[in-house]
Parts: sequence; structure tokens; C-alpha cells
Amino acid sequence: MNTKSFEVNGRHYDPPAKPIVVICMDGSADEYLDITMAHGRLPNIQKMSVSGYRGMVRGALPSFTNVNNSSIVTGVSPKVHGICGNYLYDTQLKQEVMMNSASYLRSGTILAAAADAGRKVAVVTAKEKLRDILSYKMKGIAISAEKANLAQLETHGIENVEAIVGTATPAIYSADASLFVLKAGVAFIKAGLADFLYLSLTDYMQHTYAPEAPESLAFYEAQDKLIGELMELGAVVGATADHGMNAKVKADGSPQVLFVEEMLEQQFGDLGFRVICPITDPYVKHHGALGSYVVVHLDATEKVEEVKNWLMQQQGITEVYDRTMAVHVLEQPEDRIGDLVVLSARDVVLGRRASYHDLAALDGTLRSHGGRYEEMVPMVLSHPLKPAYRIKAGGDPRNFDIFDFTINGTIV
Amino acid sequence: MNTKSFEVNGRHYDPPAKPIVVICMDGSADEYLDITMAHGRLPNIQKMSVSGYRGMVRGALPSFTNVNNSSIVTGVSPKVHGICGNYLYDTQLKQEVMMNSASYLRSGTILAAAADAGRKVAVVTAKEKLRDILSYKMKGIAISAEKANLAQLETHGIENVEAIVGTATPAIYSADASLFVLKAGVAFIKAGLADFLYLSLTDYMQHTYAPEAPESLAFYEAQDKLIGELMELGAVVGATADHGMNAKVKADGSPQVLFVEEMLEQQFGDLGFRVICPITDPYVKHHGALGSYVVVHLDATEKVEEVKNWLMQQQGITEVYDRTMAVHVLEQPEDRIGDLVVLSARDVVLGRRASYHDLAALDGTLRSHGGRYEEMVPMVLSHPLKPAYRIKAGGDPRNFDIFDFTINGTIV
Repeated sequence: MNTKSFEVNGRHYDPPAKPIVVICMDGSADEYLDITMAHGRLPNIQKMSVSGYRGMVRGALPSFTNVNNSSIVTGVSPKVHGICGNYLYDTQLKQEVMMNSASYLRSGTILAAAADAGRKVAVVTAKEKLRDILSYKMKGIAISAEKANLAQLETHGIENVEAIVGTATPAIYSADASLFVLKAGVAFIKAGLADFLYLSLTDYMQHTYAPEAPESLAFYEAQDKLIGELMELGAVVGATADHGMNAKVKADGSPQVLFVEEMLEQQFGDLGFRVICPITDPYVKHHGALGSYVVVHLDATEKVEEVKNWLMQQQGITEVYDRTMAVHVLEQPEDRIGDLVVLSARDVVLGRRASYHDLAALDGTLRSHGGRYEEMVPMVLSHPLKPAYRIKAGGDPRNFDIFDFTINGTIV
Repeated sequence: MNTKSFEVNGRHYDPPAKPIVVICMDGSADEYLDITMAHGRLPNIQKMSVSGYRGMVRGALPSFTNVNNSSIVTGVSPKVHGICGNYLYDTQLKQEVMMNSASYLRSGTILAAAADAGRKVAVVTAKEKLRDILSYKMKGIAISAEKANLAQLETHGIENVEAIVGTATPAIYSADASLFVLKAGVAFIKAGLADFLYLSLTDYMQHTYAPEAPESLAFYEAQDKLIGELMELGAVVGATADHGMNAKVKADGSPQVLFVEEMLEQQFGDLGFRVICPITDPYVKHHGALGSYVVVHLDATEKVEEVKNWLMQQQGITEVYDRTMAVHVLEQPEDRIGDLVVLSARDVVLGRRASYHDLAALDGTLRSHGGRYEEMVPMVLSHPLKPAYRIKAGGDPRNFDIFDFTINGTIV
């Protein structure tokens, strides 16, 4: 195995001659690990916690999937890599557009750099939407569980994936969509196809089930078993999450939503408000495009301060920043946000207008993310930390330091 | 055992005919439970997590001990009960004063109301400084571990405490200071002296040791054993924390401090700045009066907005509010804060000026709290939740809902 070191986005990586596996456990609020471990059903993560490391790390905001996956594979904040949601209003084109394409990415990735340094890289993502960004300029394997059966050697670096993994392409709204990703990781290492892997799961289960639900316990137990297989293959494993997950409901269990565009029009009249929900993506069953973070554009820009102050006083809204402060406090790319950025409480989501969101599409209750209360996520490492990284882990480590911790920080 | 229901601060409590024990595990960031449980050394809390409940709750800000203990025993926010730190600048008296006295408390307590309703109430606190607030207008036992040997029947509701507990009065800077509190709880129930208890520990150990330190593991294991004894006595046990705990250090392990009064004078000159560190208390070995929350008074009040905007842009500062917004966002009592309230990052503490803080007094590294990143804390219950409380637990529950959850929310 090639162990050349490499540099990307100002950081040096010096991987050991062992398989490196970084896992993004999508939507894994720490409570999912807590409860499953209390049930005795996370033996491998429990072992990692004792002989390696378990602690909390701070994700990037907004606490969405694309944003944090982009941060994890680049090692930098959204301010640098440019991906600040799934969806944005392009003020040049005057159009609302999806941001799922690598053409929006402004930084090279650790994966591409590792491949250039000679590692056999594989990226496996549950959702096809992430594949383009994660495989940006990368030589190696890049597949999604969702479209595993469509992978072609020329475009995906591999074919016959179902035969290699030994599992059929899963339904995207399932536990299997994530488990397939981990199974593919195990299979690729076993077959000698990869020695540097990024495995990115999906949070359909966390959107649908609370940590103590039997379905969730079984799901985490199954993940743990596959993580154990990765460790048995001699991998150095680092796992973190892109964001946490909270129930966003009233006392009666119904969704707790503030429709911000409607609220603003009711208060201020027509100032040309346009509220963008950057969680918006083609996968509606999870969250109905409702998260705890929206951006607000308005034509009447002289009213920004007034609108900001009013929003800050509304129950359920916790933070409001103008563009300049959003860049500073939330590490946002200045040209891809709105005039205002708005975050909501642990149990509140922000929407555009009632007619814009299809709550009937939800599977079960409304559990979502995007705000400050889904910012802190677990980090679990298979190997113990070097002293300098122990101090770093005790400071303000980020989830997008996970490659650094896994590669440079562990005693293998 | 008397099971009359009672009402206090707008909430109704209907305690079952079992001993009720609420524990404030001072400074217990969730990571302390995570790691000790991973080591298999929290069998009773593990059992509670499975057959009762474990989840996260949001504390009151500032995330300090007195503030949150006051919230827990009243069931309301600092805005209502008035205790917003250990220390404040009294703008009427033009004096800096300690806020440790019950004379600052603006709400009745659940403990006093339970006693009035006929329960045998006992409050045991590690630190004497809390005893006055916690025992406000309360008939029953109120002692501190720190001064256990000085308890008198007339003033403390009990005497010969060392003989009853079977342990000598502990040193305040020790694990034993907290363990004594739990031992006293066990002893009081066994002796039929109490059936409604509030046990408030101290965070000297968490200030001094990271979660994975052997000293910390042993400390939590010892707590767990005593919690097990409480459950064996048939108690309904609810445990939460007043605040979390984070290392506040640079990459080299040295304290990471912003001296706000000095910074402001350097930037703005003499505008009559007075920075108050509300963590200041007589117990300096923990934290050197350095926390992640300060208030700023200034004579030149016309400059408040300008100072606020400048502070918001300083690295390490995460939130700044003027008085009005601090009341709204941080639930603060308007008359007891400053012109500005300032919070800092997970790894940063705020001080007044270098000469004001004795960092040499620290035992070991600087670990502290007070800000947003010590706001979320665990809640563990011995009994399963009723359906309505399961929804509540999944929303935005507070650590000061712990009596409500323990008394009203559990299926006993």
C-alpha cells in the first residue's frame, strides 16, 4: 500500500500503511449512540470508545448533509469550499437552483489528493446526489448505494457492484441504503480494490425514528457489526456525523413550523421577500424541505436591519445575521447566502410558505436539522490519539477534522 | 408517605407515594456518561437508560451552577427567578456583590412547596454557597457536604449528620464532596428522614479531569453505585446537570482567555467599562473566575451598539446581546445584567483583565463553562415516560423541567 503523504487545502496528511476508513454517519445525533450502547448493542463502537476515542465535535452550519459532507472531504468550512446548502437563489441568474453539482465546489478534496498520492480511493455514498461533489477530480471508485447497479467502470471506477458487495441495490428510503455503503466498504477492502475510503450514509432512519425506537436500535446494531468488520480488516476507522437530529414538533406531536416568507409579508407587506430553504432537495420523504435554517432575500435592502431586529424577537427564532455577520459567525460564502440568515430553536423548523411544503409526504413524525442544536455531533476513532491530538480533541475540534484525526492523529 | 399534590410557579406537581430524588450532577457534560458507560462502569445509569429514559435537555444560560440550581428548584428561567450568576454589579448600590443569598431569589421553590404539602424534604448540596438559595422558605433538612459537621437541628433540620451518613465531612475540593451528597440521600431515605430529595453535587472533578481520565471514571462509577442504592430503596430518580464542561485551552494546553475589559479599553479608550464575570465565587481552584459568559457595563451608553458590533467581530466571541435581546434570547432578568452580554466559543473563556484572575490557583488544566457549548446536558430517569412526556422529551425540554419529568412524567 502506498503511504506517500500529501497536502490539500493547507493541511498535510501522512497516512499509515493501513486501510483508512472515514464514515459519515448521516444524522447521528449523539443520543443514537448513547441509547444503542446502553442496550449493549454497539459492542464495536463501545470498544472504539475505550481503546480509541469518543467525544463531541462541532459541525459546519447550516447543519445539512451536503454542506458537512463537503467540509469533511475538503477539511475546510463552507466559507472556503462554497457549498452552503442543497439549494440556493442565484442572484446573478435570478433563479433558484440546486447546489448538488461539483461545479459549485471551490476546494479540492482530500480524496482526490490521496488518489493522486497513490492511494486506492473509494467513495461510497448512500444518495446519488452527493456522488458528484464527493468524487470531484478524483481517480478511483465513486458509487452511490442508490444507483449501485448502474455503476460503470469508466464513469464510476468499478462495475458489477452488486456481485462484489453481495447485496442488491437498496431502496433509498431504507436502513439498507446506509448498510449497503458500509458493506461496500468491507467488500472493497477485502477485494483489494480500495485502501482509502469515505463512506457516507443517509439519515432516512434518523428522520423517521427517535433513538430509542426498536427500528433505530436494530439499525445502529447493524452498522456497528459492519464497523467491526472494517476494524477486523485492519482499518483505521474514524466516524463522525454531518449533523444531529431533533424532533420538530409541538406538544401534540404535530410539526412546529414558522413559515418565514408569510410572516414577513404579513408584518412588512411586499418588500420582495424570497425565503430559501437550503435543505430543499429531491428527497422529500425525510423532512418536507423543512429545516432549522433559512436565508432571506429582499428587494428593499434598506430594510434589512429592521427586518433582522423583528425576526430576532419572534418566538422560535434563535439567531439572525446579516450577510457580513453570517460570513463571520457562520462561516458562510458571502456570495451564496441571502441578505439575512435565520436559525430556529431545537424543536422548531423554518419554512417558506405553507403551500410550499408537503407535510403529507413525511414518513411519520417531523424530525429534522439545519440549526445550532444539530451542530454538535460525535466523533469516534478506532485508535488512541497522540498527545497533541488529545488536546485538540478537548478544544473545539470540527467534524471536518475527521480525516486529520484519523490519519494524522491516531497511534496505529 | 403523604402524596398531596401541590402547585408552584404555575406548574402542578402530583408526586407518587415513593421517594422522589432529583440529582444535579454538577458539570456533567454528556461525554462523562458516554465514556464511563463505554467502560462498563455505569451499570445503574445504563439500566435507567434502557428501562427509564436518557436524553439531552437544555439548561439555563449562563451555564453556571447557581443559575441552573435555582432554575431546577423553581422550575423557571433566570428571567423569572432572578439568579443570573454568582456575582453582579448592583447599579443602584454601585457595588459588585455576591448573589449567593436567597434574598435575590424571586420565586418560591418546588422543595418548599413539597414540604408545605406534607412531604419530608431534604436538600443536600456539596457547596455551602448554595444552601441558602436551595432551602429558601423550606421546612425540612438542608445541609451542605462542605459544612455537614456544623448542621444543627434548629437551623438545618438535622444534626449528627456525620453519624447518620456514616462518613466524615469531606474536603470541598474532592470527589468525596459529591459522593457525600449522594450518601446522605441514601442515609436519609433509609432512616425515614426524607422522601423528597434534591441532591446537588459539585463539579470540582469535571473542572479538573477530562471524561476519560481514570480519576473521572472512578468518580462516575462511585456515583453510579450510590444511584443504584437510591433505586433499590424504591426511589424515583431523575438526574440532570446544571451545565456541561469543556477544556478552554490553546493547542499547547495553556488557558485560552480573552480579557474583555482590557480589549475594550484598548479599542475604545475609557468609556467607563466594567466587565463582570458572573462565575466569580469564593471557590477559585476550579476555574479562576473564568467562564464563557461575561456582562459589560459602560458609562457611555450611547456607544452600546458600536461596542456590540465590534465585540461580535472578535475571534473567540460567539454571541453578543444588548440588554433587551439578552432578556429575550437568554431569558435574563433585565435589572441584573449589564448593557451587553457576551458569550464565547467552546474552547475560549472570557475574563476581565489579566491581573484580576489567578490562573496559578487552578488545579491542573483550565476546564470551564458558562456559554452556549455547555448548555446541553443529559437527563436520565429511572422510570419510563408517559406518552405525553415522551413527546415533550423529544422537543425542547429543559434541565429545569427535571422535577416535572420525575414527578409527573414517569410511569412508576
